[in-house]
Amino acid sequence: MTACIFCDIVDGSAPASRVYENDTVVAFLDIRPLARGHTLVVPRTHASGIADLDPVSADAVFTAGRKIAAAMRQSSIAADGVNLLVNDGRAAMQTVFHHHMHVVPRWSGDKLKFAAQLLTRRPHELEATAAVLREALAQD
Amino acid sequence: MTACIFCDIVDGSAPASRVYENDTVVAFLDIRPLARGHTLVVPRTHASGIADLDPVSADAVFTAGRKIAAAMRQSSIAADGVNLLVNDGRAAMQTVFHHHMHVVPRWSGDKLKFAAQLLTRRPHELEATAAVLREALAQD
Repeated sequence: MTACIFCDIVDGSAPASRVYENDTVVAFLDIRPLARGHTLVVPRTHASGIADLDPVSADAVFTAGRKIAAAMRQSSIAADGVNLLVNDGRAAMQTVFHHHMHVVPRWSGDKLKFAAQLLTRRPHELEATAAVLREALAQD
Repeated sequence: MTACIFCDIVDGSAPASRVYENDTVVAFLDIRPLARGHTLVVPRTHASGIADLDPVSADAVFTAGRKIAAAMRQSSIAADGVNLLVNDGRAAMQTVFHHHMHVVPRWSGDKLKFAAQLLTRRPHELEATAAVLREALAQD
């Protein structure tokens, strides 16, 4: 275990419901999701924020986020829309200081209010949800 | 003029306070900003959302967003943090159907609440603010 929970997830020493990975990034479900399927994409390389991250890894995070967004629409998650969000810096609501992108599925009328103190964050069958996304992503 | 306000801005037929552009993207200040310096990055090519956009343009939007985020921190805008946000689809709060990324500067204690009905959106000296960011970006 290291001092960084996301590094621990990347190297497998901490558990996570993984939905996607490649040589550069790992994506897994947020354990306090804003919605069912809320995924985090992190670079394998540790960097606290965008400014510290190599451009190749930064681009790879976004590319993976786009693939996951497509999977959220095309799979049985059946999202009507998706928010992709990077909170860079404590002032921007970043809470884990290993760069990451939030990929949040949305449905028409879901009434999700971002930053309404995040009161709605709770797990939604993490492993079952991860399996749905993994399957959709494996079909690329 | 076309049916798309962002296409009109890209081709110069509608005004905007531009902060950055290259062969693939144009970035300009949001006229209803969440904060001073709130910038939108759009691909020159029209696409309603991520799924319709070519990957090169999609990556270019994100790369430009990162550069602008750095400029917000390094210039006299002096952001402590930055949010990068894509709202993809009406269900995800997209309101202009030409793909775009929001780049929103944040300051410690700014109390900005996203999606609090966007009540705080008003212009903040658009041209002066655009000039600050343009200058920072020109130093790359």
